[in-house]
Amino acid sequence: MKLLHIDASILGEQSVSRQLTAAIVKQLLAAEPAAEVIHQDLAAEPAGHLSAAEFMAFQGVEPQDDATRQDVARNAQWLDDFLAADVIVVGAPMYNFSLPTQLRAWLDRLAVAGKSFRYTASGAEGLAGGKRVIVASSRGGMYGEGSPMAALDHQETYLRGFFGFLGITDVSFIRAEGLAFGPESRSAAIDAAVADVAKLAA
Amino acid sequence: MKLLHIDASILGEQSVSRQLTAAIVKQLLAAEPAAEVIHQDLAAEPAGHLSAAEFMAFQGVEPQDDATRQDVARNAQWLDDFLAADVIVVGAPMYNFSLPTQLRAWLDRLAVAGKSFRYTASGAEGLAGGKRVIVASSRGGMYGEGSPMAALDHQETYLRGFFGFLGITDVSFIRAEGLAFGPESRSAAIDAAVADVAKLAA
Repeated sequence: MKLLHIDASILGEQSVSRQLTAAIVKQLLAAEPAAEVIHQDLAAEPAGHLSAAEFMAFQGVEPQDDATRQDVARNAQWLDDFLAADVIVVGAPMYNFSLPTQLRAWLDRLAVAGKSFRYTASGAEGLAGGKRVIVASSRGGMYGEGSPMAALDHQETYLRGFFGFLGITDVSFIRAEGLAFGPESRSAAIDAAVADVAKLAA
Repeated sequence: MKLLHIDASILGEQSVSRQLTAAIVKQLLAAEPAAEVIHQDLAAEPAGHLSAAEFMAFQGVEPQDDATRQDVARNAQWLDDFLAADVIVVGAPMYNFSLPTQLRAWLDRLAVAGKSFRYTASGAEGLAGGKRVIVASSRGGMYGEGSPMAALDHQETYLRGFFGFLGITDVSFIRAEGLAFGPESRSAAIDAAVADVAKLAA
């Protein structure tokens, strides 16, 4: 099993999503100790905003300078790591109702026509199916199904839609929310999420 | 009238959203020639990914190094420009079903508790009401209401939700979509959007 472990929170030791991705990876490794793990910390080593030259490289245009060549090589490596992974554990805190731009910038390197999806006569077809994605979702407020704020969620809904576009239907969420509603709410949410991790199937 | 003109597309001269924001600004200036315009090109001069130090500065923590002090000063200027504007024209191409990270990184500098919104006993209250936002929305596919891909739209829906959170309810869209469906579809979409610009109320 190849396991890709992605963190993106800017909060370091205070990060709940990092705590949860670590717990998820530990849980999966307990069941499969021989798994190969790649850990990418997108807060420590992010890609920049997607540039026009990088976008053109997705379409086969050769980069014209060394800096872009390096970015394009890194993008190709990231895409290879993603395509090779069987399980992807993504730490996804909600920032301003959506993802950290650090995480979104990584996703921008994964959606490449001819690699992770392809255009068809009727639209598009995902080429990255058969993987399992487990998202550690942390949020200050409450945005769950049926809550008054649910319509503002462009974090979990976006990830489900994005990975679905790439053909990945097995997307599950370990969620800790209400983290900004005081220490008791925070502790209870983390405890509940950690308990959910323990119930994850191997 | 103070008008804030935001571009974010990485496609330069090829950008439809830039063509449309220029047309919108021209249309507004024709009605109000004395308007003061600030133009920010977020592709040319983006903010980086929001850092922990910048986030802490929103909460009153003094930055500890010169680079962060510069970022924090720029963030404060961007927030001031946003809060001072009567009309905000935003060029928002759809990249991977959402915004360019360049544009999202700008929005991350606008949502500041105590400035553009405040927490209340029942949730939060927007403090930036009374402005008009006009979004030039460009998209390769078709994501309009009722279309099969509508659920993947985290671009227009996100902007409406984000600005709504800040108290801005007057958010309208000039939309050109289906831009990737060949030259004829592209031309027709641009022509229709330009015609919509001409109908904008002053």
